[in-house]
Amino acid sequence: MPDVRVHNLAISLDGFATGEPQTAETPFGHAGERLHEWMFGTRFWHEMAGEPGGSEGADHAFAARHGQGFGAEIMGANKFGPPGWQDDPEWTGWWGANPPFHSPTYVLTHRPRPSIPMEGGTTFHFLDAAPAEALAQAREAAGGLDVRIGGGPTVVRDFVAAGLVDHLHLVQVPIVLGRGVSIWDGLEGLEETYDIEATTTASGVTHLTFTKRR
Amino acid sequence: MPDVRVHNLAISLDGFATGEPQTAETPFGHAGERLHEWMFGTRFWHEMAGEPGGSEGADHAFAARHGQGFGAEIMGANKFGPPGWQDDPEWTGWWGANPPFHSPTYVLTHRPRPSIPMEGGTTFHFLDAAPAEALAQAREAAGGLDVRIGGGPTVVRDFVAAGLVDHLHLVQVPIVLGRGVSIWDGLEGLEETYDIEATTTASGVTHLTFTKRR
Repeated sequence: MPDVRVHNLAISLDGFATGEPQTAETPFGHAGERLHEWMFGTRFWHEMAGEPGGSEGADHAFAARHGQGFGAEIMGANKFGPPGWQDDPEWTGWWGANPPFHSPTYVLTHRPRPSIPMEGGTTFHFLDAAPAEALAQAREAAGGLDVRIGGGPTVVRDFVAAGLVDHLHLVQVPIVLGRGVSIWDGLEGLEETYDIEATTTASGVTHLTFTKRR
Repeated sequence: MPDVRVHNLAISLDGFATGEPQTAETPFGHAGERLHEWMFGTRFWHEMAGEPGGSEGADHAFAARHGQGFGAEIMGANKFGPPGWQDDPEWTGWWGANPPFHSPTYVLTHRPRPSIPMEGGTTFHFLDAAPAEALAQAREAAGGLDVRIGGGPTVVRDFVAAGLVDHLHLVQVPIVLGRGVSIWDGLEGLEETYDIEATTTASGVTHLTFTKRR
């Protein structure tokens, strides 16, 4: 069976994957871009931006896994848009005409709307569904490839807590945010079902990988 | 001026330096010994136990810093004994007749008692004092050597928040405890006054060092 994977979810030392408040101008709240600076130097990021260059080291190797082997994505309402996007019938996400998902992409929301086909293979579908039900639909659409849980942290936590995630990749950034949305709430004892590895890289971040035991 | 240092304070991925509840039988609560297993294989630990052997790698190098260059220690009441030790006039700490501090050791408590001289150079003094005041006394007694803040996590947090700690060494262990005493509460923005380094070792832990900028 194909895997369910999470990649490049950045957290602070104290476990916050986003700061607060989250608005259209500050999607990560007081965290700003500090959780993601480690990625900006990688070739993965340069390629997404259509630019040459970028580093080819460990950060790139981890980051690039985000684009490898996926046939569908599931994301939460808070990733798709700023608070209140459900009231804007024209909102089609943060990513412009050609979003970087290139596959069926399921947005979990209590206020579903008709599907939106975009350029480049992305179609946004809107689901009011529990994790297992949403995953069944995404698996069906993924054509034998893996399904990515794209975040935000609340959705990742929900899928991990439901036992649905095979591989989880977190990137711990050396800042202390103090407040925001924690990745750890409700995940006590994660080490009992996952093998955990930590890898520090030259940029100063620590990559944490959680691989479910079979 | 000599430094104020913290060494070998182990935390879970979600930042808890001890589990709960803390009792005489389970001083680290439901965390048990899991936060400290990384240390048991080191030569530092073997030497403290009076045993030969132990590993000489990065874990030892970090752990051994705990014993180098100190003239005094400050610890919290929760480190000195289990809840209620203040009601036991015979209690002299967890460590037997020859405690591993070998220097004047200040126990912060709201119920001070007369000083207790032990074997091996340790004398326990009991202080009802704020961090800066306790530190002034410990510096005086340290004879030009460094002062160690020995924990537990609440005391470390208090001294860091008061701007009194020059070097902080945490050891992040790959377990998720879910509850306990967090090291991070109240330390938002620590990266603004400290240089932070992360080092992963073969035992699977990540050493985090915080060095105050001068």
